[in-house]
Amino acid sequence: MHAVIMAGGKGTRFWPRSREKRPKQLLNITGSRSMLQQTVARIRELVSPQYILIIAGKSHGREVRAQLEQLPAENIILEPVGRNTAACIGLAALLVRKRDRDGVMLVMPADHLIVDEALFVKTLKRAAEAALLKDVLITIGIRPTAPETGYGYIEVGEPKLRLGNDQLYTVKSFHEKPNRERAAEYLRQGGFFWNSGIFIWKARTILEALQLYLPDLYAGLQKLEPALESADFDQRMAAVYPDLQSISIDYGVMEKARNVLMIPGDFGWNDVGSWAAVAQLWPRDENHNAFQGTLVAVEAKQNVVYSKQRLCVLLGVDDLIVVDSGDALLVCPKNRAQDVGKVLELLRQKGLEQYL
Amino acid sequence: MHAVIMAGGKGTRFWPRSREKRPKQLLNITGSRSMLQQTVARIRELVSPQYILIIAGKSHGREVRAQLEQLPAENIILEPVGRNTAACIGLAALLVRKRDRDGVMLVMPADHLIVDEALFVKTLKRAAEAALLKDVLITIGIRPTAPETGYGYIEVGEPKLRLGNDQLYTVKSFHEKPNRERAAEYLRQGGFFWNSGIFIWKARTILEALQLYLPDLYAGLQKLEPALESADFDQRMAAVYPDLQSISIDYGVMEKARNVLMIPGDFGWNDVGSWAAVAQLWPRDENHNAFQGTLVAVEAKQNVVYSKQRLCVLLGVDDLIVVDSGDALLVCPKNRAQDVGKVLELLRQKGLEQYL
Repeated sequence: MHAVIMAGGKGTRFWPRSREKRPKQLLNITGSRSMLQQTVARIRELVSPQYILIIAGKSHGREVRAQLEQLPAENIILEPVGRNTAACIGLAALLVRKRDRDGVMLVMPADHLIVDEALFVKTLKRAAEAALLKDVLITIGIRPTAPETGYGYIEVGEPKLRLGNDQLYTVKSFHEKPNRERAAEYLRQGGFFWNSGIFIWKARTILEALQLYLPDLYAGLQKLEPALESADFDQRMAAVYPDLQSISIDYGVMEKARNVLMIPGDFGWNDVGSWAAVAQLWPRDENHNAFQGTLVAVEAKQNVVYSKQRLCVLLGVDDLIVVDSGDALLVCPKNRAQDVGKVLELLRQKGLEQYL
Repeated sequence: MHAVIMAGGKGTRFWPRSREKRPKQLLNITGSRSMLQQTVARIRELVSPQYILIIAGKSHGREVRAQLEQLPAENIILEPVGRNTAACIGLAALLVRKRDRDGVMLVMPADHLIVDEALFVKTLKRAAEAALLKDVLITIGIRPTAPETGYGYIEVGEPKLRLGNDQLYTVKSFHEKPNRERAAEYLRQGGFFWNSGIFIWKARTILEALQLYLPDLYAGLQKLEPALESADFDQRMAAVYPDLQSISIDYGVMEKARNVLMIPGDFGWNDVGSWAAVAQLWPRDENHNAFQGTLVAVEAKQNVVYSKQRLCVLLGVDDLIVVDSGDALLVCPKNRAQDVGKVLELLRQKGLEQYL
């Protein structure tokens, strides 16, 4: 079994803690280790280090290697530029197939949070079992616990395959992030799951799908194939990768393929997409203020505070996010958590590049 | 002419910048010099250093002396504990009378802001002229420019004394801080002025009034008189001062005395009573965010930001106060600016004394 961890994100919504040089997945926002380290640790009982591949941005190579010393250096693949998930997954699949013709690969982002890690591993095992049995593209759908508007949804069709206690379903359709009413309707209706972006398939199955649905991308990837694990891989990547089509695996493949199955996940999942999201995992005071650091809240409730270097006092404010990163301070309402990334463009315009 | 600068306040509403060891008047909140230094500089053309007295808290002695090296050391009088303005003024008056039997003294807090300093000096000169002419207690009433609820009001009676272009009035009554409606009514009605807490009188005139209206306090002060400018002054202060009646000069004398006159002040005045008040004097961006330090505001207006050590980014918030003092951070709405001092009690309860 192989694992591919996609660590190429920017995590700009975690500014000011995340920076161009230290994106979210390389930070210890959710625990004492970085999210990337936690992601690797989480699958260690399923996949041995020599079969774990990391795909990360070139500018983060040094940091990723330092954080994952237990992995062989050649398993850390650096993209000269980000080209979305289809290219990233395609590249990883080429490498897995080269090493192991019928290899099953688990694909997951480096920046998600899993609550019940044992159940997570159990679900992955079951999905891998199915992927070995059949040439299918399996995704994990998270059973929704709230009408979240920050996630895409998967609508399941009929039950297709039963393994032990687990039921895999066909997929009726993928839905973009809904508004609040629609999300509530999904929950009422049932049969809708959060799209986790975690996939399980044989490398050759996804490559066949890429060839079918994204032939240009596939052709580009083939130019990389001869250079895999050779001395001129970096050079070939620099020449070829930037021209690859930038498209998500969901949009480019999953929404079109006919051999997609979904397995429900009940292990507690959060895509850690914003300060408001990650704060759901933090300690809280009696007024539902979630915090990391020292907080004194006076007539203040439901705030999110990250202030590890200085005392933070809130007086008479509700539903705010306050983040102190040492050299910068952010204050915004929780319902603007998704917009934090927009600040970066403004900082650039104002010549405040040192804070990017 | 003598000046008495009352520098004994705690300025807790300026937490976290103000601390027990560094109260508001010793900080450079309104400019590059401390408010105390600015207060002294402002009256320098009227009063020479040897006639300027500072009354401050004992724990601030070292800092006050360091900030005012141009003053004779014996002009800095330290209170072992604060005992409100009547005791403080009475003590200063004893010293002025001892040095200069018919001396006129200007009394003013160390933590006010004056916009037009030349006009301020002109008004003080005129008041001093009146105090030399007559045995009166003169206070400056600030002509109100807005229905402020944070100030006491003086209601004038008839014109009593004209000197050049300046008219002094009798006082009909003193009014406590009004609510918004009452303050608006005061402005509509006319004849109401903000109580500035700035006084001008002969030392012996105020001592006569203290003897008449606060006989116990006066008796206590008399125990201090023999020790003035002697080696055992500190010891006597420690023994006597804590037992003096703690009462304001307004409540104890001004509201009762019959020889009170008010002179209008039009020099632009602010008692710098809160972050919201002081921010009226700061630079503003196009969205009326007042700031000190580096601020980037995105869809954020009418905020008050003090952040000199790190970049502050506000996204989608209005009417907030954000103060970073280096080791502590405060976030509260502007309309809670008066309550900032309440935070300190809570910090004490929580064992966070290092932030007091």
